[in-house]
Amino acid sequence: MTTDLMFWFIAISSLLGLGFAWYFYQEMMKIDEGTDTMKKIALYVRRGAMSFLKQQYRVVIIVFIIMAIFFAILSYGFNLQNHWVPFAFLTGGFFSGLAGFLGMKTATYASARTANEASKSLNAGLKIAFRSGAVMGLVVVGLALLDISIWYKILDFFVEEADQKHKMIMITTTMLTFGMGASLQALFARVGGGIYTKAADVGADLVGKVEAGIPEDDPRNPATIADNVGDNVGDVAGMGADLYESYVGSILATASLGAAAYFGSEWSNDIQIKAIFAPMLIAALGILLSILGIFVVRTKEGANMKQLMRSLERGVFTSSFLIAIGTFVIFYLLDLPNWLNLSFAVIVGLVVGLVIGFGTEYYTSSAFKPTQRIAEAGQTGPATVIISGIGIGMVSTALSVFAIVVGILLSFLLAANFDMANLSNGLYGVGIAAVGMLSTLGITLASDAYGPIADNAGGNAEMSKLGPEVRKRTDALDALGNTTAATGKGFAIGSAALTALALLASYIEEIRIGLIRVGNTTIEIGGQAINTADASITDFMAYYNIHLMNPKVLVGVFIGSVMTFVFCGLTMNAVGRAAQKMVTEVRRQFREIKGILTGEAEPDYERCVEISTKGAQMEMIFPSLMAVIIPIFTGLIIGVPGIMGLLTGGLGSGFVLAVFMANSGGAWDNAKKYVEEGNFGGKGSDTHKATVVGDTVGDPFKDTSGPSLNILIKLMTMVSIVMAGLTAVFSLL
Amino acid sequence: MTTDLMFWFIAISSLLGLGFAWYFYQEMMKIDEGTDTMKKIALYVRRGAMSFLKQQYRVVIIVFIIMAIFFAILSYGFNLQNHWVPFAFLTGGFFSGLAGFLGMKTATYASARTANEASKSLNAGLKIAFRSGAVMGLVVVGLALLDISIWYKILDFFVEEADQKHKMIMITTTMLTFGMGASLQALFARVGGGIYTKAADVGADLVGKVEAGIPEDDPRNPATIADNVGDNVGDVAGMGADLYESYVGSILATASLGAAAYFGSEWSNDIQIKAIFAPMLIAALGILLSILGIFVVRTKEGANMKQLMRSLERGVFTSSFLIAIGTFVIFYLLDLPNWLNLSFAVIVGLVVGLVIGFGTEYYTSSAFKPTQRIAEAGQTGPATVIISGIGIGMVSTALSVFAIVVGILLSFLLAANFDMANLSNGLYGVGIAAVGMLSTLGITLASDAYGPIADNAGGNAEMSKLGPEVRKRTDALDALGNTTAATGKGFAIGSAALTALALLASYIEEIRIGLIRVGNTTIEIGGQAINTADASITDFMAYYNIHLMNPKVLVGVFIGSVMTFVFCGLTMNAVGRAAQKMVTEVRRQFREIKGILTGEAEPDYERCVEISTKGAQMEMIFPSLMAVIIPIFTGLIIGVPGIMGLLTGGLGSGFVLAVFMANSGGAWDNAKKYVEEGNFGGKGSDTHKATVVGDTVGDPFKDTSGPSLNILIKLMTMVSIVMAGLTAVFSLL
Repeated sequence: MTTDLMFWFIAISSLLGLGFAWYFYQEMMKIDEGTDTMKKIALYVRRGAMSFLKQQYRVVIIVFIIMAIFFAILSYGFNLQNHWVPFAFLTGGFFSGLAGFLGMKTATYASARTANEASKSLNAGLKIAFRSGAVMGLVVVGLALLDISIWYKILDFFVEEADQKHKMIMITTTMLTFGMGASLQALFARVGGGIYTKAADVGADLVGKVEAGIPEDDPRNPATIADNVGDNVGDVAGMGADLYESYVGSILATASLGAAAYFGSEWSNDIQIKAIFAPMLIAALGILLSILGIFVVRTKEGANMKQLMRSLERGVFTSSFLIAIGTFVIFYLLDLPNWLNLSFAVIVGLVVGLVIGFGTEYYTSSAFKPTQRIAEAGQTGPATVIISGIGIGMVSTALSVFAIVVGILLSFLLAANFDMANLSNGLYGVGIAAVGMLSTLGITLASDAYGPIADNAGGNAEMSKLGPEVRKRTDALDALGNTTAATGKGFAIGSAALTALALLASYIEEIRIGLIRVGNTTIEIGGQAINTADASITDFMAYYNIHLMNPKVLVGVFIGSVMTFVFCGLTMNAVGRAAQKMVTEVRRQFREIKGILTGEAEPDYERCVEISTKGAQMEMIFPSLMAVIIPIFTGLIIGVPGIMGLLTGGLGSGFVLAVFMANSGGAWDNAKKYVEEGNFGGKGSDTHKATVVGDTVGDPFKDTSGPSLNILIKLMTMVSIVMAGLTAVFSLL
Repeated sequence: MTTDLMFWFIAISSLLGLGFAWYFYQEMMKIDEGTDTMKKIALYVRRGAMSFLKQQYRVVIIVFIIMAIFFAILSYGFNLQNHWVPFAFLTGGFFSGLAGFLGMKTATYASARTANEASKSLNAGLKIAFRSGAVMGLVVVGLALLDISIWYKILDFFVEEADQKHKMIMITTTMLTFGMGASLQALFARVGGGIYTKAADVGADLVGKVEAGIPEDDPRNPATIADNVGDNVGDVAGMGADLYESYVGSILATASLGAAAYFGSEWSNDIQIKAIFAPMLIAALGILLSILGIFVVRTKEGANMKQLMRSLERGVFTSSFLIAIGTFVIFYLLDLPNWLNLSFAVIVGLVVGLVIGFGTEYYTSSAFKPTQRIAEAGQTGPATVIISGIGIGMVSTALSVFAIVVGILLSFLLAANFDMANLSNGLYGVGIAAVGMLSTLGITLASDAYGPIADNAGGNAEMSKLGPEVRKRTDALDALGNTTAATGKGFAIGSAALTALALLASYIEEIRIGLIRVGNTTIEIGGQAINTADASITDFMAYYNIHLMNPKVLVGVFIGSVMTFVFCGLTMNAVGRAAQKMVTEVRRQFREIKGILTGEAEPDYERCVEISTKGAQMEMIFPSLMAVIIPIFTGLIIGVPGIMGLLTGGLGSGFVLAVFMANSGGAWDNAKKYVEEGNFGGKGSDTHKATVVGDTVGDPFKDTSGPSLNILIKLMTMVSIVMAGLTAVFSLL
């Protein structure tokens, strides 16, 4: 394949993805939104969601501008960075935000329509919800590849380097900056959205369900609109930005590893460029196969739940299966030296994602022992529900780590031709596995994003008093989404670990470039001078003493570990505080606005939306900025070994903590549902009340702190990569 | 100082410590145990505690014998280990168990006597409880130094090596095996005791307080004796074995680092021996000053709470202050090359311990904002209590890690004469800081162990119906103990982190010896052959590729991190299951034995004791053995880099997780007490009920999983050290 052919295949795939997203969006918009009440409620939710995003972007833009100025000073003032950094950083943030925005816009238009269609049939509801989810999926992958393509062309045109080999390293590492923009925006979106949604959810539940005794989504609850807005800003916009970041991060990290691994005297320019394009080509093929998979998801009229489930699975599995085959074709056509092994690395990535997804399902689905045991523990009250939920969540991390560990070793060995010392090629294999894992994101994200749409449709149906059979159908759609979402989560969390590991290697490449930039063309190791441009990863390890007995490394590991815990603690506290404010407001409305509970007066929904918005904005800033500031200061004080320690410690603790929090939260949620299905006394029993406590604790676990950790890990690495120029040449100790 | 003088100073200090322990024990035994009911209850508790230990030791002995045989095969069969290993391992376990046993025996004799004395005056109660706690403190430090002295003499006599320098490395690294025995026994004691005490506590509370509505320690509750037994087997015997292990571990690790750091052409034999003796001398001086401090703790008759507190603090601070000065004298007399810097490293250790202790108090005492905020969150129910408790616990880890990080860097820089590359000497400094932190263990442990004695005295007073004023006094004593215990916990947790770090360096020494043992007298690095005996730590890092881009290291970090979570999860689940059994039994007794609740029939206490005992025994085995087996297999599969990664990952995550769990648990406990003092509605209010849930969840956090983690981290390192001979020469990948 020629470079042009590869480039156009990628660019056209991305445009096709965006085109189909537009088509599905138009198709959805044609459908009737239902009764006037339905329209009104949808409008309330849409308005609340948009006002949140407006506020959010206002804050985020200020942070981005300050950081861009800082980067501009570093690059233009001190020549410590590539001159493209500030721009790449800004566009990464912009596109990540745009992906979330478009996904959310679609979701807020789709929910009333889904409710309306669900009043006709389950199948009609599924179709509209899933297709609207697909808009999000395709927008994310389409924008990502489009952005990558454009930047590649720009840099290819402007970057001037003596030889082609160095040029490619320069291009790919510069593009990583664009990843940092995406990560920072994603963290804000996840944390802000996560705090919003859980503050509203917890607040609405505590006063509404527990104190006033009114059901979920009851229009008499002043926080109910805020709760529905929360699903959109947290689960849709937040998730969109998050997965955009994961997708882009894995592709760019792998491309940069490809440029480094296939660099040097043994490789030709041609092979290096192919290694760079390989992850993008896999992603491009993934877009095409995702579109195909989305069309596979359709059932006959009158299909039952099981058939719907099959239909959804068929879509995802068709895409996954074809990508597995397609990978071999791509690598064969690329004719990379170890193409067969690299193809198997993609399979390793796909399998690891599936195993983690399966583990998530086993530990969080009420069909299995662990979650049932949590429900059983509810018989002795809320304390035992919490103890067993935490216990099971912690134990559940073993399976995910086992899968990741085996995945890392296998993909490394495959790509390194079974030579453990062949670091560059092995690490490229780890990156390729991450890309493989995320290659079907277009469709897995569709089945992920459709969950909150169905959830909101349920809320709309409830508030519009559409009758219990509609609510039952939207609940069925929601439950269906939970299962596919478990798989989706597995892919997101697994790919984060692999990508972060690949990014570690990219960090070393940035250090190399940083050294060269300031004129350190040789590094001295054990008295021997080695050309900086030719030094291996192992050489850099020796040069900076990045080994495990260096106290700087060990201290870095401590800092990295503690950052993940402090980050979770801060976001948990933020949810607690924001929820408290919501509780106070809802209580005030019940007290002051007479006639709310009898349905005679309408509560002040907007005030609750405003409180959640303000609470989330204020609380999101500190934990997010911590992720930027601590790596910078660690680098300035204890240098490259400290940063490497920090990133490794953060990766180790953060991955395990993320799996723990996601699984505990999910298991609590489903344990409650299990009791509601009539087990251990059913709805309203003391056991049920005990499991409701578990579910409430689990909310910030699984929807705020847990998923944000994935981004935190990568953002810390991205920040270090962007700051590498400074760290390479200066540290206090 | 001559070697003999140093040796006898250490041996005599240890005997003096044991002598005073015997004296305090005799003094306590002379006091009257009180009424017949008091005696009977004390007997029940004592019998229950002893029967638990008997059962426990029966299981532990089997494990020890199997492991000793395994070690014997490795050393005698394959020459992969020193021939002393199996014996040293067994005595370590024996002495650790003995320390716990003697402490617990004293505590079970002291509780009724404390209740009896407390019925006379607060001051009399304080004296007897504190002196009984001192028995434990002095037994632990006395036995530890005695054991170390004996083994030193034996090995000094038998070990035959060509030159003195190698001989000392052989001796000190062999003695570490003895540390592994202590660690393994300590882990069993902490986990077994921790599960026992919390299963009984949670079980007693859930049915007694919540369901039957009878107060704590009410004799009508069948689980109440088991609950009191639990305080003894968990908080006394478990803590005794734990701190014996910490104390011995820090001294032995530092001695072995001393042998390595002051080894080679620049140092004389004399200096090497002094560096080995230094940590023991500091510890010996600490014993003498602890005895002094214990005698300082006395107040005038009629002293109020504040004066009692001052008195206790005066004891601890007198010892700490004098040890700070004494350290300078010791190092000056030893005339080590950088004696002044080393003395300051001890001060660093003491200060870090104090900072962590202060942090623990700030985050867990109801006198400060964080705990008050948890109590406040109780107003919106148990869910927000849990969320804010977890949030605050996670955030609280920042301070402890900051203290440890600064402590590591400072003590390293001091001992390395501010040369970051001087690894051996720097790491020796970290060890010295750990020893300094634990040097006053004699008295800090006294004020730690006296807490559960006062607690049990309260239980005895309640059950013997001694009247509310006695209970009030024992509660005051208990509360007093909580504050000093916070400081004690800070020292235990901080020293664990520093010791584990020092043990990492000892691991490398064991690897060196392992290589030499099998005849690898040279190692090749970058084409250059280096004498194994002379190779530096950095050389070994290069030889085994123990850098942060080696996938084996990264995979090891993941495994180490996940082990700490899985371990906590397993122990949490164990408490949950064992508590469940207790609940079922108590409910059965209330149902089947008529007249329990009216006080006409006596419940079957022994059955509850038996259930707790069996539950704890069964549940303790798997998590404890995991700590032994996983490092062995990791070593066999991914070798030395994998092990180093595992230990680092485990240390990073484990330390942070331990601080988090201890602080969350402590804060929940005190938030409940804060509400009971009349805040936010006081006892019996909904807020109170919500905080009781937090307290129950916190029980396994702070008394089972959290404190066991300290031991887990070190045991994993000890196991790796003992298995180093095998790992040095064999691994699958």
